[in-house]
Amino acid sequence: MCELLGMSANVPTDICFSFSGLLERGGRTGPHKDGWGIGFYEGKGFRSFIDPEPCCDSVLARLIKDYPMKSNTVISHIRQANSGGIKLENTHPFSRELWGKHWCYAHNGQLKQFESLPCEMYSPVGETDSEHAFCWLLSQISQINPDETEKCDFAFQMKPKLDHLRSLGVFNMLMSDSVYLYAYCTTKLSWITRRAPFGEAKLKDVELQVDFGTETTPNDVVTVVATEPLTHDEEWHQMKAGELVVFRQGELVCRVEGEA
Amino acid sequence: MCELLGMSANVPTDICFSFSGLLERGGRTGPHKDGWGIGFYEGKGFRSFIDPEPCCDSVLARLIKDYPMKSNTVISHIRQANSGGIKLENTHPFSRELWGKHWCYAHNGQLKQFESLPCEMYSPVGETDSEHAFCWLLSQISQINPDETEKCDFAFQMKPKLDHLRSLGVFNMLMSDSVYLYAYCTTKLSWITRRAPFGEAKLKDVELQVDFGTETTPNDVVTVVATEPLTHDEEWHQMKAGELVVFRQGELVCRVEGEA
Repeated sequence: MCELLGMSANVPTDICFSFSGLLERGGRTGPHKDGWGIGFYEGKGFRSFIDPEPCCDSVLARLIKDYPMKSNTVISHIRQANSGGIKLENTHPFSRELWGKHWCYAHNGQLKQFESLPCEMYSPVGETDSEHAFCWLLSQISQINPDETEKCDFAFQMKPKLDHLRSLGVFNMLMSDSVYLYAYCTTKLSWITRRAPFGEAKLKDVELQVDFGTETTPNDVVTVVATEPLTHDEEWHQMKAGELVVFRQGELVCRVEGEA
Repeated sequence: MCELLGMSANVPTDICFSFSGLLERGGRTGPHKDGWGIGFYEGKGFRSFIDPEPCCDSVLARLIKDYPMKSNTVISHIRQANSGGIKLENTHPFSRELWGKHWCYAHNGQLKQFESLPCEMYSPVGETDSEHAFCWLLSQISQINPDETEKCDFAFQMKPKLDHLRSLGVFNMLMSDSVYLYAYCTTKLSWITRRAPFGEAKLKDVELQVDFGTETTPNDVVTVVATEPLTHDEEWHQMKAGELVVFRQGELVCRVEGEA
């Protein structure tokens, strides 16, 4: 199992606070010691930092934690390897370009018989089930015509592909095309939208407390999605199996429920 | 004009020494202040660090300079913007996946009428001539069958595409698929292969001197390609217009000359 963290915000926002909590799980409070990665969008621009070293010991991770990298959309992952060795090419998040946008993706879980998924437009570089599933998924998505669909239509069209991956095992996923953040749940994924008036929040993993009121403006809307709630004193939405939620600029724009 | 730096080596090698020289040109000894980037291969794995901030002031660049990131193949670029604003999505190197490999590319120069180059499999995310040319080039390359060709055949088949880009302006380029480093010249590109016995080399831009003999083993072969020679006391090969050279594990494996 791995840990996922995503953010969608209406203003460029510093992920450091949430990332601190995730960092500690990367080999200290959790077993996820087989690499980590984080992808940041700045407008259409995208950059990712990936490292096969344990997150809690990584020089690079400390830099990201301290470096004020403000972004509207972020996807992060720490890894406990199950499919594919501990190598750079197996480290999430993965990214590919489609329709002139960088798509970024991270997966938590394990898939069976993933090798038979046909990858058409995209080929995996590493050996993980996760990257193979991403290449298949994006090939499938490329056949949807985005110009002809409203955002929720698009999510409804994508949903059966995600359900298919869930039928192969555990598929908790975060994905973004720079504008939208997609979160899909099989077993564990929670989200929270924070907006003014901001209260105080305390991280579960380390002794760190931030008053959001001093860090943000009254118009800020910030949604955080994580494998498990990162804070004690806030109410997180726990997603259900087969549920897909879509965020834009911090706001929930679409929700497609799973089957009962 | 921008500055290019590439490396191909037979053992994972630290690029720090050469990168120090390039860094100083990013806004201090040179006018290239509009961002910088560097891509590292570790086996099939690839990671890049890109930053629209001036290289000589960048926190991230200092980290890369000091962080021992050993790699067989490296491509780096510092930018003086001419086509496309100073934004993350316009920052080199660019990368796309083809045939299950990460391809990384950086361009120095300026192209006219690049908008009419048809991008089929890949679309540019930003607005630069460079990324547009890369998307076209990789679409063209995808039509070559790599399994049926020897490496030099492949280079010969790629050469007319590169010549076509040169016909649109100035096209100095570095590209890699993780195994091979391709360097193509229109106006300015030099390379040097260093091997045992290593001597001392002094960087042109900063007061830094390294004795290669203490940093490497007797079997190491390291080729560095740069816009202009980075050292005073070594003999660099200056490439000619239309010349393509291909390196693998530090060794020159193919050279296709330009027309007279």
